[in-house]
This record gives sequence, structure tokens and C-alpha cells, in this order.
Amino acid sequence: MTLQHLLGGIVGAGNVLTAPEDTKPYFTDWRRQYSGAAECVVRPASTSEVAAVVALCDREGVAVVPQGGNTGLVGGSVPMGKRREIVLSLSRMNRIRAIDPLNDTATVEAGCVLAAVQKAAQDAGRLFPLSLAAEGSCQIGGNLSTNAGGVNVLRYGTAREQVLGLEVVLPDGRVWNGLRALRKDNTGYDLKQLFLGAEGTLGVITAAVLRLFPRPSANATAWIALESPRAAVALLALLRERLGDRFSAFELISRASLEAVLAHSRDAHDPLRDVHPWYVLAELGDSGEPTMLRERVENALADCAERGALCDAALAQSGEQSRSLWRIRETIPEAQFTNVKHDISVPVSRIPEFIARAGEALEATFGKIPIYCFGHVGDGNLHYNVGSEALMPRSAEVSRVVYDTLTEFGGSISAEHGLGQLKREEIRRHKDPLELELMRALKDTLDPKGLMNPGKVL
Amino acid sequence: MTLQHLLGGIVGAGNVLTAPEDTKPYFTDWRRQYSGAAECVVRPASTSEVAAVVALCDREGVAVVPQGGNTGLVGGSVPMGKRREIVLSLSRMNRIRAIDPLNDTATVEAGCVLAAVQKAAQDAGRLFPLSLAAEGSCQIGGNLSTNAGGVNVLRYGTAREQVLGLEVVLPDGRVWNGLRALRKDNTGYDLKQLFLGAEGTLGVITAAVLRLFPRPSANATAWIALESPRAAVALLALLRERLGDRFSAFELISRASLEAVLAHSRDAHDPLRDVHPWYVLAELGDSGEPTMLRERVENALADCAERGALCDAALAQSGEQSRSLWRIRETIPEAQFTNVKHDISVPVSRIPEFIARAGEALEATFGKIPIYCFGHVGDGNLHYNVGSEALMPRSAEVSRVVYDTLTEFGGSISAEHGLGQLKREEIRRHKDPLELELMRALKDTLDPKGLMNPGKVL
Repeated sequence: MTLQHLLGGIVGAGNVLTAPEDTKPYFTDWRRQYSGAAECVVRPASTSEVAAVVALCDREGVAVVPQGGNTGLVGGSVPMGKRREIVLSLSRMNRIRAIDPLNDTATVEAGCVLAAVQKAAQDAGRLFPLSLAAEGSCQIGGNLSTNAGGVNVLRYGTAREQVLGLEVVLPDGRVWNGLRALRKDNTGYDLKQLFLGAEGTLGVITAAVLRLFPRPSANATAWIALESPRAAVALLALLRERLGDRFSAFELISRASLEAVLAHSRDAHDPLRDVHPWYVLAELGDSGEPTMLRERVENALADCAERGALCDAALAQSGEQSRSLWRIRETIPEAQFTNVKHDISVPVSRIPEFIARAGEALEATFGKIPIYCFGHVGDGNLHYNVGSEALMPRSAEVSRVVYDTLTEFGGSISAEHGLGQLKREEIRRHKDPLELELMRALKDTLDPKGLMNPGKVL
Repeated sequence: MTLQHLLGGIVGAGNVLTAPEDTKPYFTDWRRQYSGAAECVVRPASTSEVAAVVALCDREGVAVVPQGGNTGLVGGSVPMGKRREIVLSLSRMNRIRAIDPLNDTATVEAGCVLAAVQKAAQDAGRLFPLSLAAEGSCQIGGNLSTNAGGVNVLRYGTAREQVLGLEVVLPDGRVWNGLRALRKDNTGYDLKQLFLGAEGTLGVITAAVLRLFPRPSANATAWIALESPRAAVALLALLRERLGDRFSAFELISRASLEAVLAHSRDAHDPLRDVHPWYVLAELGDSGEPTMLRERVENALADCAERGALCDAALAQSGEQSRSLWRIRETIPEAQFTNVKHDISVPVSRIPEFIARAGEALEATFGKIPIYCFGHVGDGNLHYNVGSEALMPRSAEVSRVVYDTLTEFGGSISAEHGLGQLKREEIRRHKDPLELELMRALKDTLDPKGLMNPGKVL
């Protein structure tokens, strides 16, 4: 029997895709940056089907590429086409298994679309805070496997921190049921941490117990003009002293980024009258009355203005105003679509110096070129995009300058997107060889045949 | 040369202790439950000294017992006396290496006493939230190695969640420098997670980068009387909707626990006039004015009282009143010192049913016996203590009943204290063999000679 027949015996022939028109969306990522062929796409509907598929592949020596919404940015969910491989799509495993409002937990399958998890939490009167641009199509299994970040990390942490328990199919097809719904459990090594952020290279996450939170009943959105990134970092510290942990986002936006949006979108307009070199978009959430929160934010901003800690600020007076401020932030990526992109992080305190130094280093090599710098300054995470289409042929050179500057600052070359195929080689220039050796030792222990998502991460 | 001489060559002869009067406090835990001999106690003062000591032990086949404040409750830091072993005390490694207020991080050495870390954060205008009874003598390296819990987990998480980076001496003496100060870093497997909570069985944590937080400027403490644990769980959900994430503690206290305190301590008095079967001690923190927070808490409690969600409540009107309420909670352990103790967790929603079922099961076997049930209900973590001195000879039987009930509820037999020596055998009855196999595989990969804290955890 062929592999396809055997797989069909497990998941049903209709769930083994081989025709090019069927497999195409699974073999290429959504931005069409990565493409590779595999023998087929297999779509199991349950944990036991996943286990049987993986066990079969283990016996046959066929590699497995786990895939969720295929919205990743580093090619982690796309086959490489270099060996016998199948794509294992989790999209049919999309049940919300349970919601427990009194334990503030949701038990969900890997193939649940992130927005569906958010919706299920909302229907139970709770918040699932993970939120990112692809939430309408990315799947929670992929979010967990890549330790996704997004706009609420400042307050709620990354995907890793949302997880209390996991169910994982191991590379030999055995199922580890670690679906505990406990906030405290010190009974040995915390195995779930291994699989979170491993980009499918150590096993297949099939389900998870996620934390839920109280829903904020009040929100406030502020657009703040500043002289410099240094002022943004200082302002964050000052405002957190006054407003505590209410911040869910604190997004830095350079004037160049705003201008790109204004040029790209007719609907967009500059929220302030005067021109300023830098901005922050801040979002806050709280329980209680919205007017109470807005009053506190207004007072804190007025106080900061008086102390010279900001140039100007506008507080959204309605949901519509808040959405239009956020639209500016969300439009930045498409407004400067083709250039050399970097998803990087440094300690928050070192952002100003990094931005200055990287700018100088780039100018020294490439002359005056546009730099679109924006991102989650509260997490030390910048999207640092350089040049325009004309610079693309020199993208490797550009990235080299950015990453080498970054390493001097104790930064990370992948803050929230992962390594995948894209940064698998580059990371070797930045990581301690001992750390790479430990990673390899873990990989060899859990996946001795090297069948789980080969060519990614390591 | 003898081992002691070689060790003296690394750390200085004065830092190799062998005389019984010197080694005694290191060979026995503070409660005097565990005792064992080792060849000596070695007290290195730097990471390179730790590395040299561990490398020497690796060559000589001598086991290493890493020890911090030796305040653990499961015998994890005490030698077993069954083989060639040394105690490696980290207490001389007690420097605060750096505080970065704008990055909200502290870089500290493993031997720093927890209270010293809290103090250093406070001096920089920040909060390090980990807080527990032993904070005046426990050390941060031990807190991280045991993933300590304490009173602020509800808001800030356990010790694991406070860590951004680690420095670890591996079992062969090599140093892994993972002291990154980044909030986001998705460049491969998150190795620090392996060592956090591993109780020193995979390597020696020598330093860490810890998260800091804004300091709350307002606090509120409430003592709330309730009909049942069910009412406590429901009240927590109701109050979190109204007061958001301001809760740092939500502690359940049974009437029996309060009465033990009243009998034990002349200073203590019942905070309420009438007798009630259950209580909650709630602590809240916020930025802004204390009066503002107290008013909000008062309104929320009044609203809950009106809805019949609580029997009675008292809000502390001063710092002194708050401290005296907390003194009741903190006196519970010594007020019922000798009985059969359990540090357990269940999903928060299942606490009421667990308490009922465990009580019935114990009564069926042992008849009417006192049960002191208290703990961090917001984390699902109960300290469930049974009987008095008379029951101690049957402690194994008692624990068996409690743990078996617990397993039906998806609970944990060690919520925050770890496994150490105490629960190393018992855990085999409760954990999936596959999970034990994975733990063993990790141990064999990182510590193939089995020299790191043998006889603990696994």
C-alpha cells in the first residue's frame, strides 16, 4: 500500500489531499515567500487520528510538517521539498472542548482560529487576551508553537504565558496528556514549556488549556507626540507609576511611519495639528466606568505635559475615534510593504540608543534611506523596516548591519515571529554555541529520527 | 590530593566546611525533618568558582547538592548521605549585579536573600512581587529552582513567571549565559524553563534577570465572612469583574483555622462579631490615591452583600488594621503545627467539591477529626492539614486518602513546595508513566552521570 492509502485509512481518503489545486494553499505561505512540495496534505479530525498519522510517519521515515493557519512570517509551516514529507493540517481539530468561567480557563483544540477562541471567551463573559493582525485566520496551535506576541503582551504576556496545560502528540505517535487546568503545579519538570515556541520541531500540539481574564469594561486610547524614543521610554515609566498595569499597549510610531500611512490611505489624517518626530499610541483597559478611567488618563497626561514629558496628546473621545487611531497603527505594515523588515527586541531602556546607532550604521553604508521604525516599545519589540523596493537586492547586507548592531545591545533577531526557515542560519551567528548544542541535544532526545518539521529552527 | 584540598584550591580552604559544628546547619533543613551527611560544604563566591567546583565533581564522580537558604519543605536542599556528595552553598554569591528601572529588570545572583531583592527593587522605585513566609532567609536561586509561589501569585504569577534570563552552571561545569533582559525572544527553545522548578537536578542556577513592576501606591485589605467555599469561589469571580486585576491575594480560611489562631495567640481576635464557617482575606493594590481604591472596594463589597454573595465584611481602615488581619493568616501554620500537612491544588472551580469530598473520605476512615483548610483560593492552592499529633503515626494513610481524592479532581500533590525527597515516590502513583519517562529522558540528556542533586524529584 502507498503512504497515501495508509493515511487515507486513518483519516478517510477525502482528507488526504494530493491534487495541486487542493494542496497549493498548504504548500505556500500567505505572503508567498516560501514554497515547497510534500507528498500530500493530511487533515486529521482528532487527537487519536493525529497520533496514528504521526506513528505511521515514524515507521515509514516520513517527515511531518505541522500546520495551523499558515500565517507565519518565517516559513515555519511550509514544507521544504527536500525529502519525504507530509503536511499535517490541524484545521479540522477546531473544537472548543470546555470553558470553565470559575477557573478562568478554556480547553481548546489546536485548529481553533484565534478569533474563535476570543469569541468563546467573550461569550462566557471573559477575555482571552492574545490578539494579533492574523487573528481571523491563524490557529491557536500555531500561536502556541510560535509563542506569538501581538498587541497585549505588555499587560498579559506572550502566548506561552497563556497556557496552563497541553496535549501533545510526540514524534513516535504517543500522546502526552498534559491538559492540566492548574495555576500551580510543582511536581517535576514543566514539560509543556518544551513544546511552546518549538515551532513544531519536538511534537504536535493538539490541544491546550488556556487562561482567561476578567473583561475590561472601560478602555482609553491616547495618541501622544514626543521628541524622541528616549522620551517614549521615560514616559512609559512615568505613566505606569500613575496608572499601574492598566496599559495593554504602548506603540511607538515614527513620523516616517505616519507619513507612509497618510500617503497610502485617503481616510487617514494626522491626529494632531503640528508635526512631531515621534508618537506613541497607548491603549489602557480597566474595570469600572469608562469615564473614570478616561479622567485618570487625562489627568496623568496633563501632569506629564506640564512636566515637559510629552509634546502634545489627544485622548479618543469615542469608540470611533479610538478605532481610527488604531487604524493608523494597523495600516503601517501595508503602507511600506516592500522593504527590508526586521522583527527585533532589545531591553526597553536601550531602545533609544539602539535606534540611534542602527540609523548611523545604516547611513554609513547605504547613505540616506527611509527607515520605518514602529512597534511594541513596552515590550522592547521594534518592527524596524529599512529602505524601499530599490534596496531589496541588498537585503542581506542591510539585515547584517541591523543584526550586528542588535547583538551589541543584547537584543534578539526574532522577537515574536520565530526562526522557521528564514533565520535558521542567521541565528548561528548570534547565539552562544553552547546554547545551540543544548537545543540540539533536546531535539535529539525528543525526536531522534529528526522527523518533526525538519529544516526549521535548528 | 583529597577532594577537600582540591575544592580548597578553588574556593579557599576557609570556604570548605567539614567540622560537624560548621556543617550542621547545611546538612539538616530548618524544620529538622531531613538530615544527611556529605563530604563537605563548599561556598563559592562567583560563577567561575561554581563552574570549577562542578567540573571537579564531574571528573571525580561526586554528587552535588545545590543549596540556597535551606528553607524548603520537601528536603530538596539536604544531602541524602547515600553516596559521595558535597553541599554547594550559593550564599556567598549575593550581589545585586544591576537594576534597570527603565527596563523594569534586576540582575541578581542566586544567593541573594529574597528580602534583599525586594529591597533593591523598592530602592529603585519598583516592585519585585515574589513574597512568602521565608523571605527573610530563603534565597532567590532556591525560589527559582523550586518555582516558589507565595501570596502574590494571583496577580503576578509564580517565580517562573518573574524570570527573563538565567545563568546556569551545567552538570559538566560549563556555564550557560542566558542572562537576557528581553521580554520577547523567539529564537529557539526557551532553555531557561528547563532549570526553573527543576530543584537543582539539571544544573546550578547562579544568576537571573528578574522582572520588576510599578509599585502600588494604594492598598486595601478586606476580611470577608462566607457560608461556604462555593461562595468564596463565586465571590472571587464577581469581585474580579468589578475590580479587575487589582487582587494580589484571595486567601480562604476555615473557622477551625481561625479558632486555632485565637487559641494560640493572645493578641489575635475575631475580626467580626458573629461566628461564620468560612472567611476570605483579600488584598488589593493599585496606583493612585488609597482612598479611591478603598471606596471602590467598599462599593463592590456592599453591592455583593446586597446580592447575598457574602455574609459580612470588614475593610481595614489603617495599615495597622491591615497588618493585624494578615497576622491571623500568617499565624495559622504555627497555630496547628503538628498534623498531616498537604500543599495541593485543584482547578479553582472544583475547590468546593474537593473540600466536601475529601472531608467525607477522611471521616469515613478516621472518624471526626479536625481539618485546617486554608490557602490561596485564587490559585486553586490549598494548605489542607489534617488531625493533630495523635494522627501522625497514620500520616501515610491520611495522605493517601487526600491524594487519591485529589487525583479524581485533576489536582496536584505539590502545588508550590516541589517534590524534593518527600514526594519523589508518591508522584509515581499520580503521574502518567509517559510523563515520568520524558522527565527521565531530559535528566539523562542534561546530567548523564546523575550527579546533580540525586535522590530528588526523580
